Amino acid sequence: MMKNKILLTIADGLGDRPCESLGWKTPLEAAKKENLNAIAAAGSSGLMDLHACGTPVGTDLGHMILFGYGLEDYPGRGPIEAFGEGLLLQEGDVAFRANFATIDSANMVLDRRAGRIRTGTKDLAHLLHGYKIDDVEVLFQEATEHRAVLVLRGPSLSAAVTDSDPKKEGLPYRKVEPKDTSIEAARTADLLNRLLPKFGEILADAPLNKERTQAGHPPANFLLTRGAGQMPKLAKMTEKYGFTGACVAAESTVLGAARLAGFNTITESCLTGNLDTDVERKARLAIDALKNHDFVCLHFKATDLMGHDNNPTGKVHAVEHYDTMLGYVRTYLPEIHDANVIVAMAADHSTPCERREHSGDPVPIVIAGHNIRKDDVIVYDEMHAARGGLLRMTGRMFHDFLLDYLEVMPKRGN
Amino acid sequence: MMKNKILLTIADGLGDRPCESLGWKTPLEAAKKENLNAIAAAGSSGLMDLHACGTPVGTDLGHMILFGYGLEDYPGRGPIEAFGEGLLLQEGDVAFRANFATIDSANMVLDRRAGRIRTGTKDLAHLLHGYKIDDVEVLFQEATEHRAVLVLRGPSLSAAVTDSDPKKEGLPYRKVEPKDTSIEAARTADLLNRLLPKFGEILADAPLNKERTQAGHPPANFLLTRGAGQMPKLAKMTEKYGFTGACVAAESTVLGAARLAGFNTITESCLTGNLDTDVERKARLAIDALKNHDFVCLHFKATDLMGHDNNPTGKVHAVEHYDTMLGYVRTYLPEIHDANVIVAMAADHSTPCERREHSGDPVPIVIAGHNIRKDDVIVYDEMHAARGGLLRMTGRMFHDFLLDYLEVMPKRGN
Repeated sequence: MMKNKILLTIADGLGDRPCESLGWKTPLEAAKKENLNAIAAAGSSGLMDLHACGTPVGTDLGHMILFGYGLEDYPGRGPIEAFGEGLLLQEGDVAFRANFATIDSANMVLDRRAGRIRTGTKDLAHLLHGYKIDDVEVLFQEATEHRAVLVLRGPSLSAAVTDSDPKKEGLPYRKVEPKDTSIEAARTADLLNRLLPKFGEILADAPLNKERTQAGHPPANFLLTRGAGQMPKLAKMTEKYGFTGACVAAESTVLGAARLAGFNTITESCLTGNLDTDVERKARLAIDALKNHDFVCLHFKATDLMGHDNNPTGKVHAVEHYDTMLGYVRTYLPEIHDANVIVAMAADHSTPCERREHSGDPVPIVIAGHNIRKDDVIVYDEMHAARGGLLRMTGRMFHDFLLDYLEVMPKRGN
Repeated sequence: MMKNKILLTIADGLGDRPCESLGWKTPLEAAKKENLNAIAAAGSSGLMDLHACGTPVGTDLGHMILFGYGLEDYPGRGPIEAFGEGLLLQEGDVAFRANFATIDSANMVLDRRAGRIRTGTKDLAHLLHGYKIDDVEVLFQEATEHRAVLVLRGPSLSAAVTDSDPKKEGLPYRKVEPKDTSIEAARTADLLNRLLPKFGEILADAPLNKERTQAGHPPANFLLTRGAGQMPKLAKMTEKYGFTGACVAAESTVLGAARLAGFNTITESCLTGNLDTDVERKARLAIDALKNHDFVCLHFKATDLMGHDNNPTGKVHAVEHYDTMLGYVRTYLPEIHDANVIVAMAADHSTPCERREHSGDPVPIVIAGHNIRKDDVIVYDEMHAARGGLLRMTGRMFHDFLLDYLEVMPKRGN
């Protein structure tokens, strides 16, 4: 028997509901999808509730579940973004999502995104990264456009603090307040309330901001923080179970969840979170990653965006683009000579167009391969999947089932 | 997209097993049911285990589950009956089901139902309601015929006490004993052992009982108590999730579970728990309730009674009566202009005729509407439902799935 490897493809927000503009079909039902159907025909289909039936999950938690974690492990958005930007947090670190913003001398927020600043934030981040305040070290990493991640590393910190981001322009930035009565929360709020004005001074003095002001652009002279989360002690799944993993994605949230689990992350600038992503390149990277990893995830984002935009036709196109990606996967798969590759297809949640948000509808799943039991489902969509041989399962069941094909799930009893 | 609303119809004890007298069909399989079938055809079917496969549940717990609670929330029958009779219990209250009964001077129970007394119990209840003993207040509410609810409200009470009802005539009423060694149980037993004789005296002196004795009817001169339950701290589901609910039913247990969940209750004397209930009126009340509520439950009882009576033919008639009710629902539904109404059909448990009691067999469910994924099931019965797109779920999953269509289920993660 050859060694098994797993290729898991994830179409973000794929699940949907019947859409009037599609003749009461779901986008997945309406799309042409010969490759998705072929994979469904080569294995077993089913429905998956990521966390639980009727409970919508975010992209971050949905992916954490696909990587083997549960709701109880969820550290909040800040830490996952930090992982997504390559900051490998340690237990106890408190991470925040941050925006470069523009404030005036009265601390009024003039622009929450500093004119959607696109260049130079790496230099700004360099001024802040490694700053020490009391016994706490600041890790700081710029992200896309005006976005960044701020991490506090030190003893006795807490994530139970409010946002400094007022969420609206024309208001002063908010003083950070503790959300509970702990010493740690009071200390963390105090640290931030001293740190943010100090960082404001450092940023205001940066050459880039002097240039921006001269050019009539709003200076990135303040940081607005939100989404505090403290890093729990989480085992890397690759270490816990003893396998190697890689994730091909454009989306930092997905890359963050993957890094958390110990997966190597693979991304390139031609991979985007939209319909213009280079699906041929994505498939190529995934197949190459399979050559030296046991478990490869291949993520596709545009399906989710179209759901959020209530664009059923756009979601049909996104599904067809995803199908094209799977076509390249099928073409390149024979390159893997040393293993039996099991191809699984899933989603991190449903994003019904009518809802414009994530919902608790189950998502269609497929697990396909020579050594996978075969049902008679030959179409990949929500309702055909419901008739499949996998029946209905949670995200945890799906994850464990895949890992068992890698033969790394511990046997219980003897 | 229009706002979603939910109409959940519940046929009590609907699920059954093949019956010999029906040619080994279930009553649901044997019945004519064009409306139930039409609703099944307009959505997805499945099987539901209320609590767990193989665990029979009572009407009270079955409905609590349909309203979003779990076994861990079950307060006992007393509190649910109290809610059913309109006594809105507070945390810590201990409630009992009570019978007006007839005892002789030696405390022997002559008639456990005081000759099934039908009139005047409101006046008797008035004599007892508000009575104080030590630091405890008594709430007392008459119910149907000889039935009533007795509630103790005060500090340090316990539901761990035995019944005073000997369950048989010709025996003395039982001294109430604590069921555990707690001070609260001892105190509650002592309170009841002093209260019940005192109430016996008050009842014996009531003018109604003097009239009954003169007319040769057994006097309602004692209260037999059973089913002690203490009210836990339970959130109203309507408040927890932020929606409005109403329940149309004749059965006090169902009304009680509904009130517990914060649903408005709608009942009229023409609604009965039997085959003579006015199903047209029930449908009318439910549709009217939908005009100003997000979630409406419409309950039908006779199916359960026929199961308890081991009357397969009667259960077929009951199903057909339920089908007639759903026919009126379908006729009136177009009156709802401001929302997309999702019609769900369920049961609180199976009551197989052969068993004459509730069983742990799963019940058939349907969720139907334009924006509900459609399977190919076009018949509503146990076995067709098993082939449906919802597959198999617990009562909790079913409840959460419905609530997610109201968009009130909190998203986990981000």
